[in-house]
Amino acid sequence: MAAETKKGGYTGKILRVNLSNSKVSVEQPEDHFYRTYFGGTALIAYYLLKEVAPGIDPLGPDNKLIFSSGVITGIPVGCSGRNGVGAKSPLTGGWGDGQAGGFWGAELKRAGWDAIIIEGKSENPVYIWINDDKVEIRDASKIWGKLTLDAERAIQEELGDKQVRVAQIGPAGEKLVRTAGICNDISHFYGRCGTGAVMGSKKLRAIAVRGHNAVPLADPDKVSEISKMLIEVAKVASKGMTDYGTSAGLGMLNAGGILPTKNFQEGQFDGFEDITGQKMAETILVNRGTCYHCPIRCKREVEVGPPYNVDPAYGGPEYETLASFGSLCGNNDLKSIAKCNQICGAYGLDTIEVGNSIAFAIECYERGLLTNSDTGGLELTWGNADAIMTLTEMIAKREGFGDVLAEGTKRAAEKIGKGAIQYAMQVKGQELPMHEPRGKVALGLGYAVSPTGGDHMHNIHDTMFAAEIPPMMAIRSLGVLEPLSVYDLSPAKVRMFKYFVDWRHFQNCGLICMFAPLGYQQVADLVGAVTGWNTSLFELLKVGERANALMRVFNYREGFRRADDAIPERLHSAFNSGPNKDKPIDHDEFNNALTTYYKMSGWDTEKAVPTAEKLAELGVDWAASEIK
Amino acid sequence: MAAETKKGGYTGKILRVNLSNSKVSVEQPEDHFYRTYFGGTALIAYYLLKEVAPGIDPLGPDNKLIFSSGVITGIPVGCSGRNGVGAKSPLTGGWGDGQAGGFWGAELKRAGWDAIIIEGKSENPVYIWINDDKVEIRDASKIWGKLTLDAERAIQEELGDKQVRVAQIGPAGEKLVRTAGICNDISHFYGRCGTGAVMGSKKLRAIAVRGHNAVPLADPDKVSEISKMLIEVAKVASKGMTDYGTSAGLGMLNAGGILPTKNFQEGQFDGFEDITGQKMAETILVNRGTCYHCPIRCKREVEVGPPYNVDPAYGGPEYETLASFGSLCGNNDLKSIAKCNQICGAYGLDTIEVGNSIAFAIECYERGLLTNSDTGGLELTWGNADAIMTLTEMIAKREGFGDVLAEGTKRAAEKIGKGAIQYAMQVKGQELPMHEPRGKVALGLGYAVSPTGGDHMHNIHDTMFAAEIPPMMAIRSLGVLEPLSVYDLSPAKVRMFKYFVDWRHFQNCGLICMFAPLGYQQVADLVGAVTGWNTSLFELLKVGERANALMRVFNYREGFRRADDAIPERLHSAFNSGPNKDKPIDHDEFNNALTTYYKMSGWDTEKAVPTAEKLAELGVDWAASEIK
Repeated sequence: MAAETKKGGYTGKILRVNLSNSKVSVEQPEDHFYRTYFGGTALIAYYLLKEVAPGIDPLGPDNKLIFSSGVITGIPVGCSGRNGVGAKSPLTGGWGDGQAGGFWGAELKRAGWDAIIIEGKSENPVYIWINDDKVEIRDASKIWGKLTLDAERAIQEELGDKQVRVAQIGPAGEKLVRTAGICNDISHFYGRCGTGAVMGSKKLRAIAVRGHNAVPLADPDKVSEISKMLIEVAKVASKGMTDYGTSAGLGMLNAGGILPTKNFQEGQFDGFEDITGQKMAETILVNRGTCYHCPIRCKREVEVGPPYNVDPAYGGPEYETLASFGSLCGNNDLKSIAKCNQICGAYGLDTIEVGNSIAFAIECYERGLLTNSDTGGLELTWGNADAIMTLTEMIAKREGFGDVLAEGTKRAAEKIGKGAIQYAMQVKGQELPMHEPRGKVALGLGYAVSPTGGDHMHNIHDTMFAAEIPPMMAIRSLGVLEPLSVYDLSPAKVRMFKYFVDWRHFQNCGLICMFAPLGYQQVADLVGAVTGWNTSLFELLKVGERANALMRVFNYREGFRRADDAIPERLHSAFNSGPNKDKPIDHDEFNNALTTYYKMSGWDTEKAVPTAEKLAELGVDWAASEIK
Repeated sequence: MAAETKKGGYTGKILRVNLSNSKVSVEQPEDHFYRTYFGGTALIAYYLLKEVAPGIDPLGPDNKLIFSSGVITGIPVGCSGRNGVGAKSPLTGGWGDGQAGGFWGAELKRAGWDAIIIEGKSENPVYIWINDDKVEIRDASKIWGKLTLDAERAIQEELGDKQVRVAQIGPAGEKLVRTAGICNDISHFYGRCGTGAVMGSKKLRAIAVRGHNAVPLADPDKVSEISKMLIEVAKVASKGMTDYGTSAGLGMLNAGGILPTKNFQEGQFDGFEDITGQKMAETILVNRGTCYHCPIRCKREVEVGPPYNVDPAYGGPEYETLASFGSLCGNNDLKSIAKCNQICGAYGLDTIEVGNSIAFAIECYERGLLTNSDTGGLELTWGNADAIMTLTEMIAKREGFGDVLAEGTKRAAEKIGKGAIQYAMQVKGQELPMHEPRGKVALGLGYAVSPTGGDHMHNIHDTMFAAEIPPMMAIRSLGVLEPLSVYDLSPAKVRMFKYFVDWRHFQNCGLICMFAPLGYQQVADLVGAVTGWNTSLFELLKVGERANALMRVFNYREGFRRADDAIPERLHSAFNSGPNKDKPIDHDEFNNALTTYYKMSGWDTEKAVPTAEKLAELGVDWAASEIK
């Protein structure tokens, strides 16, 4: 533990639960520790590097699963109710993390906890019950196997409190599906990297939390001022998100030729109008959900009658889900997408990865690499909604061909053989999210260097900066004043990329929603108002850069090198049509940009890992000893 | 010119005066330009790199002398009334700069100008008269040769306005003394690097300014709020400075064994009590001077009767002057120091460099390298106040042995020969200021890597961070949370050094006084309130880092390499007594720290210059082409 400083400043507690011996302990790091590792990915990386040896089995007892909020989680301000989780990933074999909204993270903080370190492995199914500072490991035999909604209700009933908040895996996590996630409050997912399988491997079904204490605020008036401002700004700036959710811009992506379609073979989808947020609002939407204290309400709740039987309690599909099960699979049946979303919610699966896996399987089937004898008779053709729904449930249950895809696209491709790997749209073993780099090439660089591989949570969305950078736009506060083409990979673009990605990494430490209508400096002001620290945007960006550096070191230790910072070859080929026709990502340009990024980051260009000097500059010189 | 952006945001004008052809022109860079190059050293470096070819004679017509304020100069807030100047240095042959307080910089800004680029060379003595947007080049034959006070009065009389502010050189600058400076308002000096000789080489005696317009403020209420806060904080935090000036801490430095004494042979001076700010206040102080709008009033005004005849119009000695002509020369005669200060003021000389030159000469004399036949009979013994005063005036006039020292310590040592160079306490040809690295070793690293060599204006004062870093201390806002020993040169210390030095470079771009009782974030808030930019501490630190990088490139172009980043061998030897006895600066540790600093900075460790990637990361990729 970091115990270098005197007590004072921010105080918080970290819960350690060992499921092998049922030992529960509490740690109280110093203010200095929180200021350095903050929360989320940086805090998780600190513990995983210090406590998890390289080479361990991600699904064995030596892996640790760490939940962590940020120092501002649970305050009465929109966009600050998120939480993070991390572990060695069973999908990539390297760094794994996920972030989720909802209410659970804030509840955990209101119970007095900044983080939970889960270690070891239980013999029998259990869940953890945290009621403020009381912590119990309880039997979960009766809920093991249940769908998530049923499990949550059973836990609330058993504890006699309907306000208990539950983070849990579903049956897919229990069955160690490598694309299984963890959910908060049923519909908010830590989707990526297979953290649900890690939780399942520990026989931990759920963590139920009830907290009764407000998070202390150093400057309540300032916090209140920022909260009110956020509410006002959101009324205008976030209106599209409120009305149509995260898929408000799906049509624009299609128009720009960057809507992932048919397993990234195309960038435009004929049936796109049937799967937009607007279409959803007109048809199946019954309510808008939200996260703790957030006025934006970007979450969807949808209802569909028989034969789909979609229950609004499972929320509704986000953009990532709409595209993964929609355009990516050539599927314009919105109700079937809502159903797939519900299956993934009920069984605890990541919609991005499952949609990808199915799109991959369809391409293999269409190209003759898979036949009915492989699929158990399922006709995996583009847009076959019934087959897509069926296969989703088969993956969740590891049934038949579903068991192959339950290993993730990369392992499935290796099993299928016949060159199928070229159709697995993944980086480091993790499937690409629904963002097409050929119309925003810095995103491709982002996939390559993300600690989790194909991931949009550590990444740039450079279309935002392509046209003009208006005077008050947040990126300007970092001195990035000039818009740059979405096709640009020059050093100037890499600079913008680096700054933005460092900020995104901070967001995953601060657990600030990426949709927060706040400038970067306003976030720094908020952190200062909550903690009393005389912090700055500089310090926060260094937190993000530190998190990224530590995750890099983790991956290096697991054997990842420069060659692993690569994107699927398909992205280096041009589309045949659409706005990005004849615009492949050039290999040499991409490779040069990679070198530039390493050098700008203070990373060794061969080892692709931070130099000892960079680690020292980030205040984590101890991590250099992890690089052999 | 940088003309990449649309009009809008901060607007300002740059005046270009060619003294060869008397052409006057005006340039109006875009908002983007100011946000990138800000003012001071960064802005000056932009022009010197673009417009001054390497290898030119610093005292020839091809050198350019650039005055530059910052975007917040001249606002009604304390500590923001400074101004910068830069040129290729005739002392070092590399980058030269100086910063000064007073009123002239604010007046220039109130006349509507951000900077003045002086180019070419006049045939006859001239001065420039700037009355708002009216600019005249006027004959200065009648004031050429006059002492500075007489010259200022003559100019004010000629222009019929006693409120005209004058920046000028004195007779020493006219005579191209390489340690000549430039003064604002008689007593505020751009002392270092021989910029006075550059101005003299152009036959430009003075720049007289009158401005009648308030500097526009984007958020006047916020500016006013910060101003009031500064006034309140200064009452407590700056009381020592108000009462005793910059030499308030001279006794503490002596107690700590870091008061430069007898040409850096010792760190404690027996007669220190006779030359403290406290002693000055009790004896010769008659008034406290100040800079534009500053409540601190750290400037001194002293008066001494015959035979010294010190006029308070020339102000009074600062700490640097008290130590240079005092302890460094073994001299405890306060009145003689006040006299030397006046001579330097009247003739336009840098007190640090002249005091150093004399201390160097005394050591050579005491060691027998110089005799009375060299000095013209002057007995250069430690503490010989009469000889020190006489020699000061001889340097100013280039008389006799003074002509040797007028070339600066390094050239004088080369002329004397006999190993005298080992007693020249200089880096890159510039004399060390009155701060002893053997009791704060990061300062030694700072001397080595400063673009101007021996200089405290680009440097760390690490005693500030040695004991504890209280919660609200500014450096914490950069994430530096732990105090580090003053003897430490570990990577952790180099990190602190780098961050602090980047900030000091920003101060020389923003022209914020280093004594401002403002946190770093408050300075960023102030910049935002003045300009309307959504700026941040991150952006401002990048301005500082950019300035440093550009100055590095300038020096590289002039042939400076890693070997030039060295400190005098004496600093690698231990004191024989005092608190820092047996604490030399270890060669290996120092060399390792240098390498660490280069790597942390993104500099090539052999060339000691920023990599192309670092320059791109700083938004100045164009500068890479200057590195052959």
